[in-house]
Amino acid sequence: MQLKKNPSLLASQVSGSASVSRAQESLGSFLSLFNPPKLLQVQNLPRLLSGIVDEAVRITGAERGTLYLIDHKKGILTSYIAHGLETEEITLPIGAGVAGHVVKTGKVYNCTDAYQCPFFDQRFDVRNGFITRSLLSAPIRNHENLIIGVIQLVNKHPSFTANDESFIRTFASYVAISIENAHLYREREKTFKSAVEMITSAIDKRDPATAGHSARVSKLCLLMAQEMRLSETEQTVVEYSALLHDIGKIGVPDAVLLKPGKLDDREYAAIKQHAIHTKEILHKMHWPKEWSDIPLIAAMHHERLDGSGYPERHHGLEMSTIARILAIVDTYDALVAIDRPYRRASSHAKVIEYLDQEVKKGLYDKKVYLTLKNIELLRLQPIYGDRIYSRES
Amino acid sequence: MQLKKNPSLLASQVSGSASVSRAQESLGSFLSLFNPPKLLQVQNLPRLLSGIVDEAVRITGAERGTLYLIDHKKGILTSYIAHGLETEEITLPIGAGVAGHVVKTGKVYNCTDAYQCPFFDQRFDVRNGFITRSLLSAPIRNHENLIIGVIQLVNKHPSFTANDESFIRTFASYVAISIENAHLYREREKTFKSAVEMITSAIDKRDPATAGHSARVSKLCLLMAQEMRLSETEQTVVEYSALLHDIGKIGVPDAVLLKPGKLDDREYAAIKQHAIHTKEILHKMHWPKEWSDIPLIAAMHHERLDGSGYPERHHGLEMSTIARILAIVDTYDALVAIDRPYRRASSHAKVIEYLDQEVKKGLYDKKVYLTLKNIELLRLQPIYGDRIYSRES
Repeated sequence: MQLKKNPSLLASQVSGSASVSRAQESLGSFLSLFNPPKLLQVQNLPRLLSGIVDEAVRITGAERGTLYLIDHKKGILTSYIAHGLETEEITLPIGAGVAGHVVKTGKVYNCTDAYQCPFFDQRFDVRNGFITRSLLSAPIRNHENLIIGVIQLVNKHPSFTANDESFIRTFASYVAISIENAHLYREREKTFKSAVEMITSAIDKRDPATAGHSARVSKLCLLMAQEMRLSETEQTVVEYSALLHDIGKIGVPDAVLLKPGKLDDREYAAIKQHAIHTKEILHKMHWPKEWSDIPLIAAMHHERLDGSGYPERHHGLEMSTIARILAIVDTYDALVAIDRPYRRASSHAKVIEYLDQEVKKGLYDKKVYLTLKNIELLRLQPIYGDRIYSRES
Repeated sequence: MQLKKNPSLLASQVSGSASVSRAQESLGSFLSLFNPPKLLQVQNLPRLLSGIVDEAVRITGAERGTLYLIDHKKGILTSYIAHGLETEEITLPIGAGVAGHVVKTGKVYNCTDAYQCPFFDQRFDVRNGFITRSLLSAPIRNHENLIIGVIQLVNKHPSFTANDESFIRTFASYVAISIENAHLYREREKTFKSAVEMITSAIDKRDPATAGHSARVSKLCLLMAQEMRLSETEQTVVEYSALLHDIGKIGVPDAVLLKPGKLDDREYAAIKQHAIHTKEILHKMHWPKEWSDIPLIAAMHHERLDGSGYPERHHGLEMSTIARILAIVDTYDALVAIDRPYRRASSHAKVIEYLDQEVKKGLYDKKVYLTLKNIELLRLQPIYGDRIYSRES
């Protein structure tokens, strides 16, 4: 990659050398206070937003701070409060309160006495026994100059200075980048997840007997992973592995997949191929490093700890905890949820009874199984409805 | 979202108030020079990297700058040169040259006379008639403290100062965030694209007669969009619309989709349903705003400008340029590429002859058609191989 010289930049190098060295000196002290590496790296929006308010409160020496994000469709501002009182989320119509006023005018608002300010809404103070004195509020604009939020600082003694105003103005432009980066990133994650869900439901649709299977397995796997306190990355890996574990069925002909009666040996062998197809299909995808186990884990859902599973008769040690979760949840769902042509659905109690035996035989992980067994029926109900309750004698 | 007070932060507010106001003063001058909004927003890595070098050269007053990224797997450094000579990309083994030395030691290296420096490689100067005098080089570390690159500045007169060293050290930590954000974002885009390609090829595989169809259509649509100078977003939209346009075929039974002979009316109606399924399936996905037209465009690939198409007999005015590109390319590919059971493949010349008539009848967009007609066969060959050349009399 090669770029031409930019004459305007070269010119500024020469003329701006005095201010350049001033800026260099100030850079160290600025960066030691405002810690962008910590802040901008955060891909989790709520954590990012509270980190942002923390920084602004810390640097200005305010008592507390609030960050509002705008929902332009709904015409409201919603608050994220970091420092200060633990209060409810505040929702304001655009135009109401000081923050709403700032959105309307697009200007920084510095108020030395909130109770003298015509836009100030006292109801928040009344509810929370808080007294707002001074107040500094600035709009946050994105790269299209659209106001996407408001940052508001409260109670600096005696009041916020002109310096604070200039700080909050530039700080807000930083904040905007962080928010937009996090948004962009989240958008891409959501798009990817919805693509995976779409494939999943499309595959499920080919076989009405298993409709919704992958989505349910994924929800229950996620619940299990949270129950077992796996990391966020591991939770995501098991969630996607579960959504995609049956994708190999796309390669199984209708005649076999949808056959109502018992399968002969050849047909059963064709069905078993789906786990191999799953691995092959998923291996072709580009996975970020932290998700690179997904093809293997998805393809292992019929493997058993004693090596009696398929397609590769993997032995227990090769199966990670995540793979073990998927294997048992896949079986659980198949038994609880599905009125297959050749088998009636069972209650949770019946399936647990069955799994007790299978775990004793060494087919599934004991610890993973106990986690599943100990989940209250009420928490399974959102996924399975009433079918988990006993219907059999 | 509510957060507890952080006592350590509150303490720092009080004790650090003097340095806080110093930092606030410096903030304005710093931000006026180093423009993070411009820099950090860039999602395009090459542009980001050259922007980064521009900034460092401008702020320090160097003559030129180079940014090296490390490929740890291959054990090499690859250069991105912004300001300065227009030269070839430089590839160095880790350990070689000044940049390689910096990677090995992990420390900033400030050299007042390059030709006295034992690590300096003169070959670059020799090849380019450039004379390197002073040189400042710093490692770029990611959040895991792993060195991911090196930033190197060349020729400041008389030489780089201690201030420049402290600048480059902190600047490098900024650069690391920008690079990591861009990487993260690109990873997600690649993962999404590979998911789409995976679905596409899986669907194609059900019907051997159309294997590779969507991938080819997508490549040709992208070529057309570039030829017509559509925006990058529009190029992406037509690329994805093309990859996904036949996804509705997942809902068409094998018996109809794979039938070798002529279809009866009922069967033909079932095939036509695939365009409706495409729209329904894609509408269920979460699309970022800039891609939200994809479901509509994908579903329009059998619509014709005169309203004679299907499924909704849309009239021309409802079809955007992107939709018109997909419609004609889909037809082109079907005729050129596919030996369908009921039709032999045709040469490019034959298909163009056919499309001439169809365009005259008002079925396809004239401007879009002329763009297709004017693409040289040599540029189509990477997509179609030799089949585009005449095989018929």
